[in-house]
Amino acid sequence: MDFPLVTLTTDFGLRDSYASEMKAVILSISPNVRVVDITHQIDKFNVRMGAYVLASAVPRFPEGTVHVAVVDPGVGTRRRPIIVQTDKFFFVGPDNGVLALAVKDMGGKARVYCLTNSEFMLPKVSSTFHGRDIFAPAAAHLAKGIPPAEFGPEIHQMLSPKFAKIIKRRDSLEGQVIHIDDFGNIVTSFTEKESKTMKTKDKLIVKVGNTELELKLCKAYADVEGQQPLAIIGSHDFLEISVNQGDAASIFKVRVEDKVVLTRSD
Amino acid sequence: MDFPLVTLTTDFGLRDSYASEMKAVILSISPNVRVVDITHQIDKFNVRMGAYVLASAVPRFPEGTVHVAVVDPGVGTRRRPIIVQTDKFFFVGPDNGVLALAVKDMGGKARVYCLTNSEFMLPKVSSTFHGRDIFAPAAAHLAKGIPPAEFGPEIHQMLSPKFAKIIKRRDSLEGQVIHIDDFGNIVTSFTEKESKTMKTKDKLIVKVGNTELELKLCKAYADVEGQQPLAIIGSHDFLEISVNQGDAASIFKVRVEDKVVLTRSD
Amino acid sequence: MDFPLVTLTTDFGLRDSYASEMKAVILSISPNVRVVDITHQIDKFNVRMGAYVLASAVPRFPEGTVHVAVVDPGVGTRRRPIIVQTDKFFFVGPDNGVLALAVKDMGGKARVYCLTNSEFMLPKVSSTFHGRDIFAPAAAHLAKGIPPAEFGPEIHQMLSPKFAKIIKRRDSLEGQVIHIDDFGNIVTSFTEKESKTMKTKDKLIVKVGNTELELKLCKAYADVEGQQPLAIIGSHDFLEISVNQGDAASIFKVRVEDKVVLTRSD
Repeated sequence: MDFPLVTLTTDFGLRDSYASEMKAVILSISPNVRVVDITHQIDKFNVRMGAYVLASAVPRFPEGTVHVAVVDPGVGTRRRPIIVQTDKFFFVGPDNGVLALAVKDMGGKARVYCLTNSEFMLPKVSSTFHGRDIFAPAAAHLAKGIPPAEFGPEIHQMLSPKFAKIIKRRDSLEGQVIHIDDFGNIVTSFTEKESKTMKTKDKLIVKVGNTELELKLCKAYADVEGQQPLAIIGSHDFLEISVNQGDAASIFKVRVEDKVVLTRSD
Repeated sequence: MDFPLVTLTTDFGLRDSYASEMKAVILSISPNVRVVDITHQIDKFNVRMGAYVLASAVPRFPEGTVHVAVVDPGVGTRRRPIIVQTDKFFFVGPDNGVLALAVKDMGGKARVYCLTNSEFMLPKVSSTFHGRDIFAPAAAHLAKGIPPAEFGPEIHQMLSPKFAKIIKRRDSLEGQVIHIDDFGNIVTSFTEKESKTMKTKDKLIVKVGNTELELKLCKAYADVEGQQPLAIIGSHDFLEISVNQGDAASIFKVRVEDKVVLTRSD
Repeated sequence: MDFPLVTLTTDFGLRDSYASEMKAVILSISPNVRVVDITHQIDKFNVRMGAYVLASAVPRFPEGTVHVAVVDPGVGTRRRPIIVQTDKFFFVGPDNGVLALAVKDMGGKARVYCLTNSEFMLPKVSSTFHGRDIFAPAAAHLAKGIPPAEFGPEIHQMLSPKFAKIIKRRDSLEGQVIHIDDFGNIVTSFTEKESKTMKTKDKLIVKVGNTELELKLCKAYADVEGQQPLAIIGSHDFLEISVNQGDAASIFKVRVEDKVVLTRSD
C-alpha cells in the first residue's frame, strides 16, 4: 500500500480550525495520504518568508511529494491558483511567488498549470479560503495520480518573489538578511562560496544593521564561548550570524531584509 | 486496510507532553488510527472558543471520524464524560458544552451516552488529566468499532454553551463577536442572510466596541486597499469584519463577546 | 502492515522548516513510519526541560517506539550522538542528558551505543543540524529493524541531567520546581508519597519563592473556588501547586528551579 505525502506551508497559525480543515478535505478525497506540516506560522501575508521556508524543506522529501503553500493576501482576487510539476515534485498554491523559490531550487524544467477545472475543487468555493476549497482538493487529487494537465491549461510564466541580488564590489559584498529563525540565527543571502571569498584566515568582517563585527567562521556554535557571536555556514548552505546559545537577531537588533556587508580585511 | 480518523481539540498548548500522551494512548489501543490535530491552542478553559473552533472544523471530515474535545475546567469533578453519536460522527469529551455546537450543526438526531464503563478507560485514572485517561481511550475504542452503548448508559440531555441570541429591532440587529481568528479577523454571530437584510447597496453600517464603521461588503479581502477595513462573509458563513492585510481586532480594540450592531442606513 | 512509531522532542519551534526536515528524512528512509510530535517548543537549549517533557510522554507509547530528542547546544562539538535501548523503547539523541531521565524511568537495563557508522547518516552531515543529518536517519533505520549494535560501539556511560535531590529535615522537605506547564501549574520534585508525609489533615504548608501558602491537597482543580490556589498530585505523580482556572506560576512569580519547602504544621 502506498502513502503519498502532502506537505502544508501556511500563515494560518495553529489556534484556528483552518489547517485542520485542509487536512480534512485532503483525507476525505484521498484517505491514504499522509499530511506533513512544514509550518503554519509563516508571518501573516509574508510571501517571501513562505517561499524561503518552503524551499528549505522541500529537497528533503521523497520523490512524488505534493507541496501545498498558502500565503495568500490576494485570495479571492484574480491572482491565479497554479500547479507546478518539476522532475521530482508537485507544487500547489497561488501564483504570487510563494512557490517560486522551491521550484527554482529544483532546477531543470518546470511545467505550470492554471488551476481552473472546478471538478477538482470543493462544490462551493468561498472567496476567503482557497486553501481549503481549491488547493487542498487539488493536492489530494494529484496525490491520487490525476495528471496536472487535467486541472487546467498549461501557462508559461509564474511570479517570482524578489530577493535582493548580491552586489559585488572590489573588497566587499553586499547582501541582505533573508530569514531569522526561531533561535534568532540571522540567515544571510551569501552562499558558502561567496562568504569564503571575503574570509581572511578564519575571520569575516560583517556589517549588519548598525553593528560591525569581526567574526570567526566556525564549524559549530560551541566553537566560541556561550553568548559570543560567530559566523557559520547553516544547514541550508547560507552564511548565518549566530550567538552561541543566544538570540543573535535580538542582541544585534536585526530584521529580515536588513543590509549585510562582508568586507575583506586589509 | 482502514485508517479511522480521530481529531483532537484542546487547550493544552504545544509545550508540554499532554497532547502527545493522548496520541500515545490512542495508538496503543488502535494502531491504525490517524490522529489529526484541530488545535491545542484554545484559550485556557474557554469552553465557548473550543465549541466554536470544533464546530468550524467538523463538517469537513469524512464520515465516521471520532472528534475528541478537551477544554475541561471541571476535570475531576462530577461533570460527566460523554460520547455523542450523530448520523455522521462520534464526539467524545466532557459534558460542559464544548461538544454541543458541533453536534447541533450536524442537525438530525444525536444520541448521548455517559462514559462510565471503566473497561474503556486507562487502568489508573488521574483526577487532572481525563483527556489521556478517559477520553483518548474511549476515542480509540470507538475507532475500533465498539458501539457507543457499550461505554455507559444513554442519557437524554447535554449542556450547551450559551451564545447570545441575535436581537432584532426595526432598523438594526444586535449580535456579538463570537471569535477572533489568528489574523485578527472579527467573526460576528450574524449569518450571511441576516447581514444582507441590513445592507444598503453594498454597504453595511457596523458598530463594534466603540467604533462605528461604514463598510463595503466585499467578496475578497483585496477588494479594498491594504490596511483598509471591510465586511466579508467568512469561510464559515458568518459576517466578519476584517482589515485587508491587517489585524482588525487589534486596530479596533475588539474582544470576543463584544456587542456588534448592524444598522440599516437611512 | 506495520506502522512503527517515531516521536520527536526538540527546541526547534514551529516557524521554521527544521522539524519537517526531520520528518522528510525519516519518511524517505522508512515510509511506513508514523511520526508523533511530543513537542518542538522546549525552551531553547534547555536540556533539563527536554529531559522532563520527554520522560513525561514516553511511558504512554507502545513497545518498540523510537524516541528522538534534540535539544543540542553542543551540536557539532565532540559530544557524542547515542542510541539507547531499553526493554521497551529505543532512544536517539545527543549524549548531554536529554535522554537520561526517560531512560532511567524505564528502569531495568539499558544498553548505550555511540552513533558512529556513517552508513546510517545523511551523505553530507552539517555541523549545525544533527537532528536532520544524524538523529532522524538513525531513528528511521531503527524503525526498519536495524539492530542498535550496527550503528556503532557499545559504550558504558551516558550523561544525566542534574536535578536537585530532595533534602529531608525533621519537620520539612526541601525540593524544587522542575517544570511549569502551559497552564502555569507548578510541578515540584516531590512525589505523592513524600508530599503526604508532610500533610496535616488535608492541608500542606508550602513555601515557594517568597510566598508561604497553606494549601488544601485536592483531588480536582475545581475542589476550590475559581482563582484559588490548591495543591494536587498531577498526572505524572508529582506534587503540583495550581490555581483553579488560573496561572499559578504568574500569580506567585515562580520559575523553574526555584526552591520549594514543605513544612509539617504544628
